[in-house]
Amino acid sequence: MDIYTDLCRLIGADQTSVNETILRNHSKDESDHAASEPDVVVFPESSEDVQKVLRYANKHKIPVVPFGAGSGLEGQAIPVNKGISIDFERMNKVIEVRPEDLVVIVQPGITRIQLNEELKRHGLFFPVDPGADATIGGMASTNASGTMTVRYGGMRDQVLNLKVVLADGRIIETGSLAKKSSSGLHLNGLFVGSEGTLGVFTEIALKLHGIPEDIVAARCSFPSVKSCVEAATAILTAGVPMARMELVDARSIRQANEYSDTDYVEAPSLFFEFHGNKGGNKEDIEFVRAIVEEAGCLEFLFETDSLKRAALWKARHELNYAYRHGNPQLACMTTDVCVPISKLAENVEFASNKLDEYGFKGGVVGHVGDGNFHTMIMYDPKVEGEFEKAVEFNHQMVKLALKSGGTCTGEHGVGLGKIDFQREEHGEAMEIMLALKRTLDPNQILNPGKIFPEE
Amino acid sequence: MDIYTDLCRLIGADQTSVNETILRNHSKDESDHAASEPDVVVFPESSEDVQKVLRYANKHKIPVVPFGAGSGLEGQAIPVNKGISIDFERMNKVIEVRPEDLVVIVQPGITRIQLNEELKRHGLFFPVDPGADATIGGMASTNASGTMTVRYGGMRDQVLNLKVVLADGRIIETGSLAKKSSSGLHLNGLFVGSEGTLGVFTEIALKLHGIPEDIVAARCSFPSVKSCVEAATAILTAGVPMARMELVDARSIRQANEYSDTDYVEAPSLFFEFHGNKGGNKEDIEFVRAIVEEAGCLEFLFETDSLKRAALWKARHELNYAYRHGNPQLACMTTDVCVPISKLAENVEFASNKLDEYGFKGGVVGHVGDGNFHTMIMYDPKVEGEFEKAVEFNHQMVKLALKSGGTCTGEHGVGLGKIDFQREEHGEAMEIMLALKRTLDPNQILNPGKIFPEE
Repeated sequence: MDIYTDLCRLIGADQTSVNETILRNHSKDESDHAASEPDVVVFPESSEDVQKVLRYANKHKIPVVPFGAGSGLEGQAIPVNKGISIDFERMNKVIEVRPEDLVVIVQPGITRIQLNEELKRHGLFFPVDPGADATIGGMASTNASGTMTVRYGGMRDQVLNLKVVLADGRIIETGSLAKKSSSGLHLNGLFVGSEGTLGVFTEIALKLHGIPEDIVAARCSFPSVKSCVEAATAILTAGVPMARMELVDARSIRQANEYSDTDYVEAPSLFFEFHGNKGGNKEDIEFVRAIVEEAGCLEFLFETDSLKRAALWKARHELNYAYRHGNPQLACMTTDVCVPISKLAENVEFASNKLDEYGFKGGVVGHVGDGNFHTMIMYDPKVEGEFEKAVEFNHQMVKLALKSGGTCTGEHGVGLGKIDFQREEHGEAMEIMLALKRTLDPNQILNPGKIFPEE
Repeated sequence: MDIYTDLCRLIGADQTSVNETILRNHSKDESDHAASEPDVVVFPESSEDVQKVLRYANKHKIPVVPFGAGSGLEGQAIPVNKGISIDFERMNKVIEVRPEDLVVIVQPGITRIQLNEELKRHGLFFPVDPGADATIGGMASTNASGTMTVRYGGMRDQVLNLKVVLADGRIIETGSLAKKSSSGLHLNGLFVGSEGTLGVFTEIALKLHGIPEDIVAARCSFPSVKSCVEAATAILTAGVPMARMELVDARSIRQANEYSDTDYVEAPSLFFEFHGNKGGNKEDIEFVRAIVEEAGCLEFLFETDSLKRAALWKARHELNYAYRHGNPQLACMTTDVCVPISKLAENVEFASNKLDEYGFKGGVVGHVGDGNFHTMIMYDPKVEGEFEKAVEFNHQMVKLALKSGGTCTGEHGVGLGKIDFQREEHGEAMEIMLALKRTLDPNQILNPGKIFPEE
């Protein structure tokens, strides 16, 4: 069997490649999971192309792995069992903007920055903002979220409908354009976050939001990470509708200052954003100021003009890159636990102390409004035992999060990195997830080796 | 086989009943779907009781139907194939309030009013408010929503975790206490809205919200239903974070005035509620006032004191009862379509005109911020052909909603009433839903005859 020749015949040679560089580019993502090349890369231009590829793959039991921007952090796009990598770079268009419905329908290959550029002229925006400029398809696959999730929700909260090509090539739609529904079973929610293991998305309908009348950003530094977390918790439970509330520890501020040319005080900080009207934001800000002063805030500074505000969030979003670029000889492993807010201080402190104990460079940042935070563990892959120590650290974070009633992954997904915790986190429910997977993909061709532990 | 004797032995005679009145009380809900009595009613007191009942029922292929408050509108709790009705009235407790996490864990038999009473002293509330005082279990089963869904979301948006007893008696948990997760498959979303067809809930963890600092209610009357809908659409697309935005047509205002002792202007109206701080609400109200005046608003009145505000929402919530009590000789059929906002005016006008064409009493009310509205069709069950005409009317509403890209049910669920539209709405996806159902309930004991059309 020659997969390449077959696929050339099925969807055309201009949409099929075994070029060495292209195969290598589809062998990895931004994580430290081992690279593995696919046999072939295809570049579909329509749902029908994807359908042809899946029918063929299903018949011959060849693995298929969807590929977006390659910005994943848990190895979801790595073809660990080889097979066909489906790259969506040619399916990257806005199909329809429906401003009155606050809805947009897109192809999966469009990136979040590209989408927001197109929405700007309608006075609308799409609020899910992982650090990377990921594709919307990739973000839906991992149920991505970001700094604005505390206010607007993550991907699963935005997806109204998916066009999905199933393992056997059947095409379904999982929802409708209504803002809510009690009809049928909720396939939207099941497919979002399924990381290509249940089907391949070819169209995505998303909720949109109006650009707020008034946006104010602020940053606030504290004597300790603990006081940051306590202030954030107090703000949340007081019900202030924060649009963004991000923890950045002193080490990460230092790294940002080096990489991003900012000059922020090198102390544990909260970065805030308020979305609303002028009167509402004014009162919310005064209220938050009182809370953070009570928590021992060292200084509370506004980024009033839009350039400085953009610089603040750019610095935050690029922290992962800042650590990598600032330590070119080191690799970065990023933890991703999410815990109930009452357990956040304990979990963040544990991470902070462990960095010191292990002697790793790195830092703690996070979406504290959601209880989700990341420890950037910078380790030297050339020093024997360092990688294993980083893995051990990551596992300790997960164990504590699960003990706290939380989850092993708040937004990066399971991929390869969190498979070993699936049974511990989900218990008997894992058997149900496996049964659903077998039902939808009996030949196990859809992104095999991801999410589901060996049976 | 004597089901009653077996169940008495399994979970005790004090938790098992074949009393005639009790069987009759479990034969129907508040809809006009035909009553059908169960063989036995059980009153579990724990997950283990439910587990025993399900293991027994699964072994002997006996239907089981969960029963909450009996307030459903699509026949979900009617044991159409007889069997065991599982009544949750003894499992109605708050298990744990976690104020710092904004989370509560409850048993399924607690009602929404009972829950909010218990939450008040924490300064918290649970925002999903269908008209009836339904149980949280029932509301999770149908993915209920209500007047505050436009701001806070429906049941699916609130459920963090479910303890579920599966058909074979296995017990799983579908989520965690973290506010978000990208781990495993999203079983929460799949089970919420499954109407007892995939498993039986015995514990539910819900998100809570802080009671806002400032709450302002207002009502505003218009020359036509069309101008109401246009104003609502303009408010939504301007991005005002309305907490409630309800359409009540002139007929329904009249009915409310008769039943609720209010004296509202008998014209098509929008009822509003603003949640926020004083400064923010003030600006939002001025902004909304400008929009409704542009749309031809006749008057804009505030319900400033909390008693009048409560009276306003009581009048709105009790409209269904108002129609029934005001027309004791008539029956009420309630439609429940949900459409994209851009199609709302067309759909509401269609309903309004059809009421006149058919000569039915009744009216149109709805959660216009979500595109979801109800037509109360008052028909005389003693007049030949009236019921059939009401059904035809309901079907025409569904057809137009589906043509508009909407759904046959925004919040009441499928039950018996919307089964016939499932294939039309979901197309090929229905086959996937059926496959999932077969996987989770191979003996078809879980609420048979609901949601899924005959194969």
